[in-house]
Amino acid sequence: MKKSIVLAALLFGGITVFAQTKDEQALKDIYKSSLTNAKCYPWLEHLSNTIGSRLSGSTGADKAVLYTKAQLETLGLDKVYLQEVMVPKWVRGEKEIAYLQVGKQKITFPICALGGSVATPKKGLQAPILEVNSLEELTALGEAKVKGKIIFFNRPMNPEFIETFKAYGSCVDQRSSGAREAGKLGALAVIVRSMNLRLDDLPHTGATNYGDIAKEQRIPAAAISTNGAELLSKSLKQNPSASLYFKQSCETFDDVLSYNVVGEITGSEHPERIMVVGGHLDSWDLGDGSHDDGAGCVQSMEVLNIFKNIGYKPKNTLRVVLFMNEENGVRGGKEYETQSNKNNENHIFALESDSGGFSPRGFSIEADEANFNKISSWSTLFEPYLIHKFVKGHSGVDIGPLQSNHIVKVGLQPDSQRYFDYHHAANDTFDAVNKRELELGAAAMASLLYLMDQNGIAK
Amino acid sequence: MKKSIVLAALLFGGITVFAQTKDEQALKDIYKSSLTNAKCYPWLEHLSNTIGSRLSGSTGADKAVLYTKAQLETLGLDKVYLQEVMVPKWVRGEKEIAYLQVGKQKITFPICALGGSVATPKKGLQAPILEVNSLEELTALGEAKVKGKIIFFNRPMNPEFIETFKAYGSCVDQRSSGAREAGKLGALAVIVRSMNLRLDDLPHTGATNYGDIAKEQRIPAAAISTNGAELLSKSLKQNPSASLYFKQSCETFDDVLSYNVVGEITGSEHPERIMVVGGHLDSWDLGDGSHDDGAGCVQSMEVLNIFKNIGYKPKNTLRVVLFMNEENGVRGGKEYETQSNKNNENHIFALESDSGGFSPRGFSIEADEANFNKISSWSTLFEPYLIHKFVKGHSGVDIGPLQSNHIVKVGLQPDSQRYFDYHHAANDTFDAVNKRELELGAAAMASLLYLMDQNGIAK
Repeated sequence: MKKSIVLAALLFGGITVFAQTKDEQALKDIYKSSLTNAKCYPWLEHLSNTIGSRLSGSTGADKAVLYTKAQLETLGLDKVYLQEVMVPKWVRGEKEIAYLQVGKQKITFPICALGGSVATPKKGLQAPILEVNSLEELTALGEAKVKGKIIFFNRPMNPEFIETFKAYGSCVDQRSSGAREAGKLGALAVIVRSMNLRLDDLPHTGATNYGDIAKEQRIPAAAISTNGAELLSKSLKQNPSASLYFKQSCETFDDVLSYNVVGEITGSEHPERIMVVGGHLDSWDLGDGSHDDGAGCVQSMEVLNIFKNIGYKPKNTLRVVLFMNEENGVRGGKEYETQSNKNNENHIFALESDSGGFSPRGFSIEADEANFNKISSWSTLFEPYLIHKFVKGHSGVDIGPLQSNHIVKVGLQPDSQRYFDYHHAANDTFDAVNKRELELGAAAMASLLYLMDQNGIAK
Repeated sequence: MKKSIVLAALLFGGITVFAQTKDEQALKDIYKSSLTNAKCYPWLEHLSNTIGSRLSGSTGADKAVLYTKAQLETLGLDKVYLQEVMVPKWVRGEKEIAYLQVGKQKITFPICALGGSVATPKKGLQAPILEVNSLEELTALGEAKVKGKIIFFNRPMNPEFIETFKAYGSCVDQRSSGAREAGKLGALAVIVRSMNLRLDDLPHTGATNYGDIAKEQRIPAAAISTNGAELLSKSLKQNPSASLYFKQSCETFDDVLSYNVVGEITGSEHPERIMVVGGHLDSWDLGDGSHDDGAGCVQSMEVLNIFKNIGYKPKNTLRVVLFMNEENGVRGGKEYETQSNKNNENHIFALESDSGGFSPRGFSIEADEANFNKISSWSTLFEPYLIHKFVKGHSGVDIGPLQSNHIVKVGLQPDSQRYFDYHHAANDTFDAVNKRELELGAAAMASLLYLMDQNGIAK
């Protein structure tokens, strides 16, 4: 028995060593391709600087669909196509205005309408303003104190969280639900402190959600820059009875036709098993969405470019999907799932990049225990590439709707410290993205897809 | 015997758990202090935006000495003082000019004199130009081909290295030794491609070293931007006989008096055992040295501020040293070591931050096996703070001269991807530093110093 154990150990050890060496070489090839021969950075340059912002239903979004489809067509994939999806069309209109009226003095603030918000009356809106720090505080104040007021949500993101997404998650309810809840209590409008950890002058937009409140009962919602929020709060302490004037002319139109952009390399052994890699092609309208999520789109496209460059033919079908409308509806992600069900497709793996184009640190994994352990066991392969984080957690909004018993879903986790400096703001532009960091992210994604493809899904 | 093992295991386990909990709490306190109550970012803002560049011997360097000493004096330390050190004084002079003369056309290039370089003749210098990729290639060409030429060193940093410092290390010989070696072969001057991984229009300075070549035999050396190098190389292929004109008026003066800035908290148990934390206060003259190494200075000062804030009294003496003249002489580091020897000081630990103020990733450790293992064993404590790299390697230039049998030396390793976008160039400015990343670096440094102080040096 001892002999057979030794033999098994030798054999097993031998196989492991061989597999390691092959995988190690593949990752080397992948990183070399991405760092010396990538297209993702020039792709992003075009998306950001030539096309610009890509809000669902905008000309920019239309151009981005055509451009990325045309670029995928240059890669020699087996299929490139568009998938129809109806999307909301919300337009910001004129530059928003806000000031605090203190006697004859006007103190102005940088604001922007929140995505999906209704407009103020054409001449604007002026009312006393009430600062609160949470939805709970609002509810406790009740209708008597809230009615007729503009509610100012001013809870900052908590800097004590090491990962900024946790600070965002514990703060964003003010933006997403503030207008709905304040409206129920008779407020006239809400102003929300921008989801930004640093103090600056840029208001950050993002979706606000009225739920099932009737259109005519919805109240306008705007974001104020963090410096603006500090100044407004201070001014209100000095002048509690001051009134705020603000004006925005945003508008929601009928839904319009748009597209998810899809390209694929058919699997050489299991063409029916699908691995998805993607990001979302739409962006908010203030910057050009370079980090959110131009970066994720071009990184996903780059994965296929890398495989073509290094001559790797995946066993399973590898499909890139550039989802439309993550920001204000997730219609692309939902439609993709609907069509997938209709066609009885078998998705085994989905990987999304939607946390910015910063230095990659690891992966956030939604999987059963066996698959989580399998992926984590590859950490030594990733060590030379400074990828060290393998944690359980949320993968991505666009791949969220994809559900099956066996699917493994993963989100790329880049360094998060700078993300909310740019998120949904006018400075989310091409110059904020570093070429190498973008390419390292694409290589980490390609490496994980390679390992998944080679070593399969634990059952 | 079994019982005693179980008992020992329980006791040992218990002690470990207790120690972990105490250390875990200390790291929590340290990070909270740094992320909510730090002074390092406003300190850097002043150093960068009010004082500006701090080349050894400049007014900026003098102001920085006075400013940081005054700031240390506000922290309630046990000692704050200046340590005299004589430093070189090199001055850039007028903006440098370079163009390629192709017939009647002049193609201009962004250049800057390398630190320590001699000037061209007052009217400039014009000569045929010869491109090489390495010192070896230069030597192989020999005097016959080199004499009377301007040598253009154009080997780019290799993007395949995952860590950019490795790419720098394998490339910087062109800058540091190019002029010396080309001069020996009769070249008239050298132009060196900037040590920058990206293509842009900024020339990056840095020290060039003539060795023991007599002053009158030294030839001028300048850096050219990466875009400039690409254009120059292409132009030379089209016009091999074109000549390059360039002019620079830099000058070296007599050494002047400057200072290392020192502050300390006397150890409560072992005042004679010294732990040093530091960075270098001087910078190059083109930007304001925010990453190199304003960041390291204010992070080092912040370590003492954190300990004061959380009420931690180190057992060993904790000394912050802001070294003068790292960039072109390391006189501060050498003088510190000389004085330390003269005073029979006992340094047990030195930690330097001189790799930029980016997201911290880990530590580069110079220590014997036992100490390396001890420090590495703390990695689980650092895991919640995304510090994952504990590797053997170079610690820091300024603490380099400190040598003793038992000293452990460590360098903070931030994410390196963006560092050479800014290094020694005009864009190394305050806006390139993120507040949280800077603070996280300071917290990582304070955490390591705390653990060293508590858990001692393995013997």
